[in-house]
Amino acid sequence: MSDRARGQGLAVVLLSGGLDSCVTAAMAAREHELAVLHASYGQRTAARERRAFYAIADHFEVSAARRRVLELGFLGSLGGSALTDPRAPLPEGAPGHGVPATYVPFRNAHLLAAAVSWAEILGARSVWIGAVEEDSSGYPDCREEFFRAFQAAARAGTRDGGALSVTTPVIGMSKRRIVETGVELGAPLHLTWSCYRNDERACGRCESCWLRLSGFRAAGLDDPVPYEPRSAR
Amino acid sequence: MSDRARGQGLAVVLLSGGLDSCVTAAMAAREHELAVLHASYGQRTAARERRAFYAIADHFEVSAARRRVLELGFLGSLGGSALTDPRAPLPEGAPGHGVPATYVPFRNAHLLAAAVSWAEILGARSVWIGAVEEDSSGYPDCREEFFRAFQAAARAGTRDGGALSVTTPVIGMSKRRIVETGVELGAPLHLTWSCYRNDERACGRCESCWLRLSGFRAAGLDDPVPYEPRSAR
Repeated sequence: MSDRARGQGLAVVLLSGGLDSCVTAAMAAREHELAVLHASYGQRTAARERRAFYAIADHFEVSAARRRVLELGFLGSLGGSALTDPRAPLPEGAPGHGVPATYVPFRNAHLLAAAVSWAEILGARSVWIGAVEEDSSGYPDCREEFFRAFQAAARAGTRDGGALSVTTPVIGMSKRRIVETGVELGAPLHLTWSCYRNDERACGRCESCWLRLSGFRAAGLDDPVPYEPRSAR
Repeated sequence: MSDRARGQGLAVVLLSGGLDSCVTAAMAAREHELAVLHASYGQRTAARERRAFYAIADHFEVSAARRRVLELGFLGSLGGSALTDPRAPLPEGAPGHGVPATYVPFRNAHLLAAAVSWAEILGARSVWIGAVEEDSSGYPDCREEFFRAFQAAARAGTRDGGALSVTTPVIGMSKRRIVETGVELGAPLHLTWSCYRNDERACGRCESCWLRLSGFRAAGLDDPVPYEPRSAR
């Protein structure tokens, strides 16, 4: 850790285990010590994502006291999303128009609320989240406008919250740029998991795989995670 | 239910089981059908509050599909509050200056996020919460400024969220006025529970009991819930 990193203090980084949040953590690590927060909320691939979270936390040498896994199972129990309902079909291929079936209503508010609560307890002034607006899937809670409004709510609703910031460093990036930034920073992309469907070999077909693969392809790079044989896609 | 009530549609009301949220539900019921949401988050008297929630939901004849109890145990697991830490002493008597030890960091953001997620799923446009700013305990997430900011975040971060409202009808009321309003509206105050310490007979000493008792006293009314014998207070 550089002196600059020491000077900037602690940041709480939401780390799903996917590509975007891993690159976000690498960007935060240039300026901050990291506390990393992961949530399970009844999504299909929760166990695999949690494994990716721990592997990425190990890579960034985050101490045990500064990593937390939260069970937000109630989010899945409220219903309303194909991501948490094993009976609902998963959309495949390129994102269509409008809000996709995998949208978990207002999910990012829950993740940010947890990060802000923990930041307040730890005395951290900085919360980072790897949401992507343009190249992502049209989720309303991935819009920059939402994060700006949530930051205002966090400042108003916490003790000494006036200086609290919610940082979304990849929000305007294409998936290609995210991959390139990760490579530049030496982020452990091989440890990330994005597939909505599988635990061992990514399906290569769901919307999340499609976006990820298109990013690596545009960057002229091979995705280091294993995929099902092409014949099965 | 009146025709006016039908016209206003469904509201999600956060119902802790305490005095303020019960009166809030009675106020919402003048205009809306109710969906009621309760959260356990590791607070000491969770079981007793849940019992109060169900009794109040029964009183308002809320159907089973429109009542939910969410486990937000992770909030307690993050630490930082005497309300969720059985080893920490509970403050007694009148609230002091500053943020009290019972403050659960950014708790109301979690409750509102759950209410907004559920409202989005149900198609409801209205979320009600019985927070009190002036006569309460100086929690930063009970300030009107916070609720205005959170409403903006909810509008920005949900599907068709532009018309979504977060209503705080008792936020500027004294405890006396809340008791009087509850009596005027026939709210079931005898079913509510406020004590932070006990499950059967309220202690009469914790901050929450103190505020409640002062409200009934100022209104010139007896509190209908049972208390420990005065000698033990």
